[in-house]
Amino acid sequence: MSPIITAFEHSPDRGRGLARDMRVRWALEEVGQPYDVRLLSFQAMKEPAHLARHPFGQIPTYEEGELVLFESGAIVLHLAERSEGLLPCDAHARARAITWMFAALNTIEPPIMELSLARILERHETWYEQRLPLLEERVRKRLGELGRSLGDAEWLNGTFSAGDLLMVSVLLRLKPSGLLDQYPQLGAYVARGEARPAYQRAFAAQWAVFEAGSTPE
Amino acid sequence: MSPIITAFEHSPDRGRGLARDMRVRWALEEVGQPYDVRLLSFQAMKEPAHLARHPFGQIPTYEEGELVLFESGAIVLHLAERSEGLLPCDAHARARAITWMFAALNTIEPPIMELSLARILERHETWYEQRLPLLEERVRKRLGELGRSLGDAEWLNGTFSAGDLLMVSVLLRLKPSGLLDQYPQLGAYVARGEARPAYQRAFAAQWAVFEAGSTPE
Repeated sequence: MSPIITAFEHSPDRGRGLARDMRVRWALEEVGQPYDVRLLSFQAMKEPAHLARHPFGQIPTYEEGELVLFESGAIVLHLAERSEGLLPCDAHARARAITWMFAALNTIEPPIMELSLARILERHETWYEQRLPLLEERVRKRLGELGRSLGDAEWLNGTFSAGDLLMVSVLLRLKPSGLLDQYPQLGAYVARGEARPAYQRAFAAQWAVFEAGSTPE
Repeated sequence: MSPIITAFEHSPDRGRGLARDMRVRWALEEVGQPYDVRLLSFQAMKEPAHLARHPFGQIPTYEEGELVLFESGAIVLHLAERSEGLLPCDAHARARAITWMFAALNTIEPPIMELSLARILERHETWYEQRLPLLEERVRKRLGELGRSLGDAEWLNGTFSAGDLLMVSVLLRLKPSGLLDQYPQLGAYVARGEARPAYQRAFAAQWAVFEAGSTPE
């Protein structure tokens, strides 16, 4: 039986591939693991059946028989550990790749999400315009450091890994802001991620859900 | 040879155990691994020698021979994987414990850090008082969900794991805010973490660094 993931029935990102199920879909495609999807309405996400799977009432979750996981980072790591293609075999290189997974989620994503949340939730507040440079500066600081660390390399840690998968996923949220354009190395890095056939298949799958949901009846 | 971690020479938290080296010290103590510490000034953290270890110029790092890691979550996972006591042996329970590690760092820590950062960096801004309820509400939402998920259990996932170590570490930052007092189950959970002998040893070690640094000359 294929594992089952959950995703938004109507993704608030309108099919742009920014919802966190995209990371799990991409990882599943990279390791060649077929999967099923359970689509959830916003209401269903807050109901006991889903809260039993995900204590914070979010997507994605991952079900594989008796095993139920949440947190996209944990799901990607689980897939990477039991398949080939997302973590190097060498123990040191593997530990470094996992370091980049945590860097994506705990160092790079928080300031990017704050900027994104402010744009959505605080756009009409009196302080929005004044705070924006502060939020952007926090993101820029990290992008500068990340760009220097990547340098001219193709991926963060030699070959493509789950660290790149999460880092590219996190950086993609910046595309509409134009912030990424100021770091050509990072822009090219994100483009390399998007060009991977596994990414393309995952993107098409989540886009198909959005399109199906937005078809006039 | 013992592994070497880096920590603040003068921790901005004044020895309260909130700097991220504390998580790594705690994990090292849980698994009974002796370690050495390299203390860094704020200036040394921005110099090439340290940036080669940590692309974002932060602490902690972890050196074990040729292997150099950064990101406290990745270091704790590395220690948990090669020792006993921080991850269950059963494969499903292990994957669940790792899920809680990611939940601590990617779901619970970001709103807590935002509240903490606003208190430090935006306290004198005109919008600070107006924004505070919004920041506190984001934290409260997660605490409510986490408290319900923990229920009357001692730890998040059966026995104590690296998931609890990171979750308790993240929640500790809330102690001065009083927010934790509104969730007695979580308060008791954090107290159970602090009561562990390994936590106590780690706390004493980082406190000794602070005390040594603040001795009048």
